[in-house]
Amino acid sequence: MTRKIILDADTGIDDALALAYLAASPEAELLAVTVTYGNTPLSNALRNTIELMKRLQLTVPVYSGAEAPMVRTKRYSGAFHGEDGLGESLGVGEAPPHTPIRASDFIVEQAHRHGKDLTVVTTGPMTNLAEALLTDPSLADKLGGAVCMGGAVAAPGNVTKFAEANVFMDPEAANTVFTSGLPVMLIGLDVTRKTLLTEADTRRWRDSGSGLGRFFADFTAFYLDAYKRHYPYLKGCALHDPLAVGAALHPEWVRTVPFFLHAETDDDSRGRTIENLFPPEGARPNVEVALQVEAEAFMKDFFAKVEGLF
Amino acid sequence: MTRKIILDADTGIDDALALAYLAASPEAELLAVTVTYGNTPLSNALRNTIELMKRLQLTVPVYSGAEAPMVRTKRYSGAFHGEDGLGESLGVGEAPPHTPIRASDFIVEQAHRHGKDLTVVTTGPMTNLAEALLTDPSLADKLGGAVCMGGAVAAPGNVTKFAEANVFMDPEAANTVFTSGLPVMLIGLDVTRKTLLTEADTRRWRDSGSGLGRFFADFTAFYLDAYKRHYPYLKGCALHDPLAVGAALHPEWVRTVPFFLHAETDDDSRGRTIENLFPPEGARPNVEVALQVEAEAFMKDFFAKVEGLF
Repeated sequence: MTRKIILDADTGIDDALALAYLAASPEAELLAVTVTYGNTPLSNALRNTIELMKRLQLTVPVYSGAEAPMVRTKRYSGAFHGEDGLGESLGVGEAPPHTPIRASDFIVEQAHRHGKDLTVVTTGPMTNLAEALLTDPSLADKLGGAVCMGGAVAAPGNVTKFAEANVFMDPEAANTVFTSGLPVMLIGLDVTRKTLLTEADTRRWRDSGSGLGRFFADFTAFYLDAYKRHYPYLKGCALHDPLAVGAALHPEWVRTVPFFLHAETDDDSRGRTIENLFPPEGARPNVEVALQVEAEAFMKDFFAKVEGLF
Repeated sequence: MTRKIILDADTGIDDALALAYLAASPEAELLAVTVTYGNTPLSNALRNTIELMKRLQLTVPVYSGAEAPMVRTKRYSGAFHGEDGLGESLGVGEAPPHTPIRASDFIVEQAHRHGKDLTVVTTGPMTNLAEALLTDPSLADKLGGAVCMGGAVAAPGNVTKFAEANVFMDPEAANTVFTSGLPVMLIGLDVTRKTLLTEADTRRWRDSGSGLGRFFADFTAFYLDAYKRHYPYLKGCALHDPLAVGAALHPEWVRTVPFFLHAETDDDSRGRTIENLFPPEGARPNVEVALQVEAEAFMKDFFAKVEGLF
């Protein structure tokens, strides 16, 4: 059975890998990509998405969403994804033509059309999904759910020692999603750092003889290099966003624990995802947090499918 | 089948409840109480333990242990347990006569005697157990394991927003225990804050007509009041230490997840229990962290047994 998916991405490097993984997964029916700022400004993320889809021969529509977090402004660092969001493979770009409907409006419309058959997979800050839920709170009951790459519940953060990047960028959006009533599975650093891509993998991609393989190898090498500098103790770069896709399609690969979770907005721990000690009266746990992953099963599927494209 | 238990306690109020619970549990064969500084200075903790045992008609030996953490010094606050460690019910005291063998030496000796049949339950800082493991590293393979009340893995701390009191007091001891190879089950704020004692409970104890019930009601009321002031959002006081006993006797009441865990020793997050991103090559998860608890089953057993003593 296929699952209808909207991918909501701030198309940087691991988002690109997630998109390729989706494109190669017969279990998924990708309805569209909705785009957000995040790893890179919105214009780059849009351009990267459209360029990737061309190269992946994907023809689903692309919708443009939030340019900034709900509350604060956002500053960009090109350290992990490059100034262009794709390892300097494309250069800083303009947003090319794309569907004029706003990302959040599209999510609302599709939720009404497909209901429980639709899962939104977010691989960037949760601003677009939060906007959709604020636009139409009935979405929480209509949608099948969301699988969100974000957070670090029992593991150290990556932007700060307390916070993971996607939640750090817009904790207010994360809290809007978490408290909406929507079934949320959180794929955080707790599990994503256990799924790694190494130089041996990109070497294989480069040697595949395929232009697409070389393109993916090139921008992923940028990411690997950044990981090597920042996290020399990891043996590769984390497959953050691809694992969110993997968990959406194969929830049996992760073991989750239900929490009443929130993202802290205090200055000293901004973006920390932690149990909320003040749940509303009678509230039930609101987030299924992935704490264990069958890394081998996921990685085998990921590499086989993505390399099938090269 | 009974399980041999050494209770290692910094006998304050919830330690007293844990001791009473043990005394009333036919599943447990309590070998001794080893005492540590923690909620209150060692002298008070010893006096409290011996006084409680007299009132509980418990005749097992009491061993005196660490007076201070492995590395730093310790300052005391009477806010939760009173200046005497027992809600001002006994007043600040001298250590009465007790067995002269050092707590850690007793733990070592008993581990060699009873092996896997012996579980150490710690309800204070882990200094005594760490000392035992440093004295004789072979303990890690000999002992059945340790069930430690401490930590806050996916939940906010209580001493700081990052750290729980027992681990905060001696994170170096916690790390010694965690990395020793000893099977450790961590009963932290993740679960203990879900098991609460309320005023209705102490009222019932006071109304029992028993002197012991009144004594327990009085010092527990002190703790309840402190909770009300500090954590007005909780509906009672947490049964931290009794839950460690409960989980040791009935592991089926908690759901644990294995982590490679450590306690942070940085100033800004001292005592935070979090995944260790730098496990030694080939290391396996070292701590089973309790993240869910069958609170009803535990509380029912706890109250029935303790009230059976009154």
